[in-house]
Amino acid sequence: MLYLVGLGLSDETDITVRGLEIVKRASRVYLEAYTSILLVDQSVLEAYYGRSIVVADREMVESNSDEILRGAQTEDVAFLVVGDPFGATTHTDLVLRARELSIPIQTIPNASIMSAIGGCGLQLYNFGQTVSMVFFLDNWRPASFYDRIKENRTIGLHTLVLLDIKVKEQSLENMARGKRIYEPPRYMTVGQCAQQMLEVEEDKKEGVYGPDSLAIGAARVGGRTEKFVAGTLKQLCDADDLLGPPLHSLVLLGSRAHELERDYAREFAIDKNVWDKTWSEQYETK
Amino acid sequence: MLYLVGLGLSDETDITVRGLEIVKRASRVYLEAYTSILLVDQSVLEAYYGRSIVVADREMVESNSDEILRGAQTEDVAFLVVGDPFGATTHTDLVLRARELSIPIQTIPNASIMSAIGGCGLQLYNFGQTVSMVFFLDNWRPASFYDRIKENRTIGLHTLVLLDIKVKEQSLENMARGKRIYEPPRYMTVGQCAQQMLEVEEDKKEGVYGPDSLAIGAARVGGRTEKFVAGTLKQLCDADDLLGPPLHSLVLLGSRAHELERDYAREFAIDKNVWDKTWSEQYETK
Repeated sequence: MLYLVGLGLSDETDITVRGLEIVKRASRVYLEAYTSILLVDQSVLEAYYGRSIVVADREMVESNSDEILRGAQTEDVAFLVVGDPFGATTHTDLVLRARELSIPIQTIPNASIMSAIGGCGLQLYNFGQTVSMVFFLDNWRPASFYDRIKENRTIGLHTLVLLDIKVKEQSLENMARGKRIYEPPRYMTVGQCAQQMLEVEEDKKEGVYGPDSLAIGAARVGGRTEKFVAGTLKQLCDADDLLGPPLHSLVLLGSRAHELERDYAREFAIDKNVWDKTWSEQYETK
Repeated sequence: MLYLVGLGLSDETDITVRGLEIVKRASRVYLEAYTSILLVDQSVLEAYYGRSIVVADREMVESNSDEILRGAQTEDVAFLVVGDPFGATTHTDLVLRARELSIPIQTIPNASIMSAIGGCGLQLYNFGQTVSMVFFLDNWRPASFYDRIKENRTIGLHTLVLLDIKVKEQSLENMARGKRIYEPPRYMTVGQCAQQMLEVEEDKKEGVYGPDSLAIGAARVGGRTEKFVAGTLKQLCDADDLLGPPLHSLVLLGSRAHELERDYAREFAIDKNVWDKTWSEQYETK
């Protein structure tokens, strides 16, 4: 059996009881560690599980999945995924390959940013499609998120923006020289995301949002140190110190926002006067 | 401290390790049991936790929340919610009241239908807003879901439809006589949902979907007996026997569906020929 086990969002105790039992008894345990991370190290997980785990990078999962699936027709293999196995990133290829090899599959769901973000006070019913934001480069500024946010905002819905993480990246120099030396991991902050969003709006000028649009920055969602900061996009450009360490996400408010959402999120406002004023100007009239 | 503890989707072992620790040590434990249910009884939970729990019905949570919150400034109260505490139903009122009473709050996230539905093979990125479907009555057929599905489909997105449950309902006769006798619980099936959807389309005739639109019925998502059945809405009207016992949900496919989604979901098709034919007629051309 191939078990896809969700680990939840924060630390080693966020695994479900059912998931933990599987991890303890599986023949081999892999940890998918390139689309999201827990807030604790691999060593903490290993101590907690009482066994070693293999970190599976993107290359291994995408090019060497038969090694992960080896023998899973008759023995149990656990593939651990931060959040929910079907959350932001699915592992469709791995599951399809397992099916080809006649390996039975079972999923152990867990918390995902896509529902835990509800802790910011906005109703999940009022969210449209989720988008991703990558680190811009000088000559590479993918802005497909903009059109999708536009679709959401046209019908008044909130948008959850998931932020890029870069782990096990090589510098161009090391890559050219074939050196397997990796840069320190980088996690996009709410400030960087808000800044890039405003840059793209300045380029496109379609008025999808602007410096005064309301948004909520979220840090370490679902964890013991979870933190939300609400304000305008312009305010959120400088709110990283308030939010603290990664991981960060951002929610852009839609016009269908309800008073109860306003009241709940107001608690997180950087400046309650700015929050109230912007709300009454931009949302109450819609 | 008020702890909002997600229980996950299926049975007593779906609670997280962190959540279980809190339940074991809290002064009082309440179970919210009117918006969703686990697939096991209260007695199973009580045996597993080694303590008694109080079932909180809608009346108690909405009208008598101060009893739930009593003393939570200094002692720990656990409020258990099936799925994720911020999943389909939030408990905004309870949290706002706790804030007024200066009670600290912590949330223990868990799996939600809103991410676990990804097990059907459709990418969560391609979902629009989630809608709810209630049991129609002769003179009460709320169809706001129709306009929201229309919004999603206009931009090519999938729609998750959450289905009504009725627990602790009184018959009109018993209500009139003031008798606290409750009807057996009712859970809407995929067949009932598909039927109601088609009735509303026949009324409105806006062509949002039709008998040949592709959809996926889901039963007991996240549980050991999870089951998906894919086909046209017309086929799904008669697929309840294939799906088995509650809880059910339904996903209506959007035109932005990707080949990989088709291949993954095809495994669940009632009739693979119908699936392939409908796909090539309705989706490949979009």
